[in-house]
Amino acid sequence: MISLAQQNPHRRFNPLKREWVLVSPHRTQRPWQGQTEAKTAEVALTYDPTCYLCPGNVRAGGVRTDKYTTTYVFENDFAALKPDAPQFSSDEGGKGLLLAEGESGVCRVICFSPRHDLTLAKMSVPEICSVVDVWSEQYAELGARDDIRYVQIFENRGAMMGASNPHPHGQLWASRSVPDEVVSELAGQREYLAKNQAVLLCEYQKLEESLGERVVAKNESFLAVVPFWAVWPFEVMILPRRHVTTLQEFTETERSDFAAILHSVTTTYDQVFDTPFPYSMGLHPAPCDGEQHPEWQFHVHFYPPLLRSATVRKFMVGYELLGSPQRDITPESAATTLREAHLRTLPL
Amino acid sequence: MISLAQQNPHRRFNPLKREWVLVSPHRTQRPWQGQTEAKTAEVALTYDPTCYLCPGNVRAGGVRTDKYTTTYVFENDFAALKPDAPQFSSDEGGKGLLLAEGESGVCRVICFSPRHDLTLAKMSVPEICSVVDVWSEQYAELGARDDIRYVQIFENRGAMMGASNPHPHGQLWASRSVPDEVVSELAGQREYLAKNQAVLLCEYQKLEESLGERVVAKNESFLAVVPFWAVWPFEVMILPRRHVTTLQEFTETERSDFAAILHSVTTTYDQVFDTPFPYSMGLHPAPCDGEQHPEWQFHVHFYPPLLRSATVRKFMVGYELLGSPQRDITPESAATTLREAHLRTLPL
Ligand SMILES: O=P(O)(O)O[C@H]1O[C@H](CO)[C@@H](O)[C@H](O)[C@H]1O
Ligand SMILES: O=P(O)(O)O[C@H]1O[C@H](CO)[C@@H](O)[C@H](O)[C@H]1O
Repeated sequence: MISLAQQNPHRRFNPLKREWVLVSPHRTQRPWQGQTEAKTAEVALTYDPTCYLCPGNVRAGGVRTDKYTTTYVFENDFAALKPDAPQFSSDEGGKGLLLAEGESGVCRVICFSPRHDLTLAKMSVPEICSVVDVWSEQYAELGARDDIRYVQIFENRGAMMGASNPHPHGQLWASRSVPDEVVSELAGQREYLAKNQAVLLCEYQKLEESLGERVVAKNESFLAVVPFWAVWPFEVMILPRRHVTTLQEFTETERSDFAAILHSVTTTYDQVFDTPFPYSMGLHPAPCDGEQHPEWQFHVHFYPPLLRSATVRKFMVGYELLGSPQRDITPESAATTLREAHLRTLPL
Repeated sequence: MISLAQQNPHRRFNPLKREWVLVSPHRTQRPWQGQTEAKTAEVALTYDPTCYLCPGNVRAGGVRTDKYTTTYVFENDFAALKPDAPQFSSDEGGKGLLLAEGESGVCRVICFSPRHDLTLAKMSVPEICSVVDVWSEQYAELGARDDIRYVQIFENRGAMMGASNPHPHGQLWASRSVPDEVVSELAGQREYLAKNQAVLLCEYQKLEESLGERVVAKNESFLAVVPFWAVWPFEVMILPRRHVTTLQEFTETERSDFAAILHSVTTTYDQVFDTPFPYSMGLHPAPCDGEQHPEWQFHVHFYPPLLRSATVRKFMVGYELLGSPQRDITPESAATTLREAHLRTLPL
């Protein structure tokens, strides 16, 4: 990276979403007098009788969670999307200003483990493999349906990221429409393919691997990198080292390498501020909209909010909501911190 | 609004940004076991000797704040943008994947009042008029410069929205580039003008005024409405009742009506949960990029995070970051709550 950019305000372009982020590297000296967050406590109980995700307990909606022993999937009791939602479309006033349309779908909760005290970072790679298998099965099942065009699999980890329960779990929201974030990534990747006869994220992975300065971890099949255009302080993207559009295309080795890189990223995060690192994480396979997606490369986003310490986060407010995202530390310095943290997770 | 939408999951279209929001009206029954926020304390001190924005005090950077008596503007000591930032543009690897360019600009802090304990809601309309005058002068001064194409004026209010100081103040970030949020609103408004030979937000204001169900407050010159496509639970947009692109075009009456509607919205907010309501608020005048902007209508966005109570906020995480924004209460029900709160602010 040119040194001018390391010390001066600049913008960087995200070709995937075709958006800019403002980078202000000199701003880290700013003292912080604002809100601090509660330090996340480690969970000690392997079974919590008050947790609605622990095996055999009754959930808020009145349903009893099975006595599961590995991973466990159930319909979200308070689903944002419902399979039987009526289809309608309306344009009150007829001016295209009050457009609404019915949206159906399915929301499920995916418990990663029966153990209340675990996290992806504390689970073993084979245990994470079972989670990957469940994600893959879910995508296959729901993606095959005519009324589902996208399956968004994600995890909100930590109270700071709106998780209402520390039990290791993620969610999927599968919808009739392709959501806008994916629409925008689709447009960026399509444009790149048309212009360059190459897959954007495959080219990007090769470039990052050759430069190395934003690489956090890698294995035979995957690369974890702080994107050049990262918005969140310690944002990470996981990229396969060959072209694959969905989880189903993974070989056996790739599945276990995928579990391993998820383990590397989450254990690395927990090292940074010596605290369970909050984040939202999500898988971005190609849409299951019945079309071919030669432009699409499977990838995973990690969006973690912490900036300076276990208790001081980045606020995406004011200028970020009204103008453009802004970051203080450069992606290169975040990658250096993460690389060093990653080394501490490895056996001596 | 058709009743199907009041009870069923649906999407609504934001024509300004050309994006969708997922609305899940049935989801409000969901119990909340997640993070709660500290209740915001009322500020009692009119002068706080430890506040770097109170008149005569020394700031973190070592500079002394003047003994000001009305509004007060100074350069941000820890500015995200700097006037002398070097211009450069780089594309390491030559594939359009690592694009960066130098970005210069100016960041200023605008103290609304010397009184530490005030807020826009507690200030009088004439006092808010002085703030409006300062905004207008700042936009005129900075907007006239060749190296400034946008002046983003905003306020982060409350610790929950990253404000590091309760002293009543806002900021402006003026930049060489037009930020993406504005670029996207520009595109939406341009498209609408080209298709309909009418100004999007002028048409929208008339439609909302005639329907009334999302209107929160109004006066001779302005309307405050929960947008049909609102993302934040109690999001509000202020729209002029005639076509104006910038603050400078306001008549004397409009300036004071603008101060009055800002006062109405902020006092209304504080009524909702009987607490100082946190928000990010920002002015969206047309870009000062040397071009004509017949498509643009001046407007103000209020993005407040609270959802259920003074301590339970909406988290924009997981699905919101990876898929699309999602809301639980409908804009119509939020408008009803706000309208009732507004009535409580009026003299009997
Ligand atoms: O400049 P402040 O008020 O210290 O900082 C606050 O507002 C900025 C502009 O919205 C944000 O970038 C920061 O994350 C936030 O903490
Ligand atoms: O469904 P949960 O985990 O209760 O809710 C959490 O994740 C959802 C999906 O990202 C968000 O819409 C909610 O704001 C958040 O609190």
